[in-house]
Amino acid sequence: MTQIKSDYIFFTNGTPNTYKVKLILLELEKEYGITFESRNIDISKKENYSEEFTKINPNKKVPAIVDQTGEKPLIVFESVSILIYLSQKYNIFLPNFKTNPNENSDVITWAVWQAANLGPAFGQYFHFSFYSPTVQEYSLHRFNNEAQRILRLLDDRLSVSPYIGGKEYSIADIASAGWLLYLNHAPIFKATKERFPHLFKWLDLINQRDAVKQVNQNILEGFKNFNPTGIRSLFTNDPELINAKAPVGIESVVLKYDQ
Amino acid sequence: MTQIKSDYIFFTNGTPNTYKVKLILLELEKEYGITFESRNIDISKKENYSEEFTKINPNKKVPAIVDQTGEKPLIVFESVSILIYLSQKYNIFLPNFKTNPNENSDVITWAVWQAANLGPAFGQYFHFSFYSPTVQEYSLHRFNNEAQRILRLLDDRLSVSPYIGGKEYSIADIASAGWLLYLNHAPIFKATKERFPHLFKWLDLINQRDAVKQVNQNILEGFKNFNPTGIRSLFTNDPELINAKAPVGIESVVLKYDQ
Repeated sequence: MTQIKSDYIFFTNGTPNTYKVKLILLELEKEYGITFESRNIDISKKENYSEEFTKINPNKKVPAIVDQTGEKPLIVFESVSILIYLSQKYNIFLPNFKTNPNENSDVITWAVWQAANLGPAFGQYFHFSFYSPTVQEYSLHRFNNEAQRILRLLDDRLSVSPYIGGKEYSIADIASAGWLLYLNHAPIFKATKERFPHLFKWLDLINQRDAVKQVNQNILEGFKNFNPTGIRSLFTNDPELINAKAPVGIESVVLKYDQ
Repeated sequence: MTQIKSDYIFFTNGTPNTYKVKLILLELEKEYGITFESRNIDISKKENYSEEFTKINPNKKVPAIVDQTGEKPLIVFESVSILIYLSQKYNIFLPNFKTNPNENSDVITWAVWQAANLGPAFGQYFHFSFYSPTVQEYSLHRFNNEAQRILRLLDDRLSVSPYIGGKEYSIADIASAGWLLYLNHAPIFKATKERFPHLFKWLDLINQRDAVKQVNQNILEGFKNFNPTGIRSLFTNDPELINAKAPVGIESVVLKYDQ
């Protein structure tokens, strides 16, 4: 039996940054019939530090892809770089720079904004909310404040623009959706429809896409299995702290949600 | 007297993310004779929160540019998005996607990597080292460890590649240089030539460029005037903490530098 090579190998583990890539791969699968195979990298088992994976991504993080459609395999890592690469390759979800420099620039700006602002802030908030062994009050406030600022900014943006990057669905939406789809399923950041009406209107809009429906399903399944133990063991050796439900002492911290 | 409009308005304040944009604008000035005027935004006076500046950048941060060369002014914010925009416009420091997809993708990947990894880690390290009113030991360790990981990764990368993005100077170098040029002038992160030889060889290489020389001069001048007071007043009202030389208690923290 000959093995048929898929167009893309997709290194993933069902976390926000990997969902961005899954969202675009599913769209390309539907639109252009591309094929991809997913390979799971378990970070709680430090599989991302293996010699084999480090050759794929020296930054030792998921997602990464190997494009096998050309003469030589081409590796791309960093979720937003993967989005830019695939959108340029298939001429989709990113307006052309030559013909529409303004629209292209807006989409790139909001995609990069996600990588440099939303992603780091939400990532640190999750660390200090779920994974730090003991509560770090200053830092939990700091990253909650930043996450709240970002949600408020996006709600303002979506009050004047139907999509994050402009008039059409683009990689700017896909970049932020990797994290924001979680708000469909849990009131993380106390983000409710009442507080962020435009953000939830945008969620309703993109939730209609097949690719988004599938990732929403993945997120729900992930929630069922959510257990901070595996990740927390990366930060402490103390079994009591590893097995705690949340950072020890977190119940004493009162976070502000409206500023 | 008629006022001659410059090609670009450059919103800046002499911090790492703004130096990225200054580095490319100076290169374009030399290479193509473009003109730009700098407008200073003082974040210790919260000028970035003004209504006027929020119209330029809803994310309320520097840098941002206004491109005045077209029919309508075009605004771009996020330093790495500005680098991508200008490199596409002038076809410089970014290989063409159509003819060199591999090289284009490597440069974009390492530029986005800077925005999502180096920038946030170094930014948080600076916050917890200089600006947090009292020392936050857990977080200082966390972001120092991450900064050390990033420096080690870059040193490895530069042991096999002359430039960060590949064989030529590109926006991947410019993105990281905004922060890394500081290492020319002070042993931040205890980053010495002995510990990171390939990184310092790369610094020697790019330090020869006129634009880099000029920004090095700006950084040196900034060091002379360095005073955390203005920034720290954004995080506390306590005059003793505002005026302390460093986060109170930081002398008791011993950071690890080699792992």
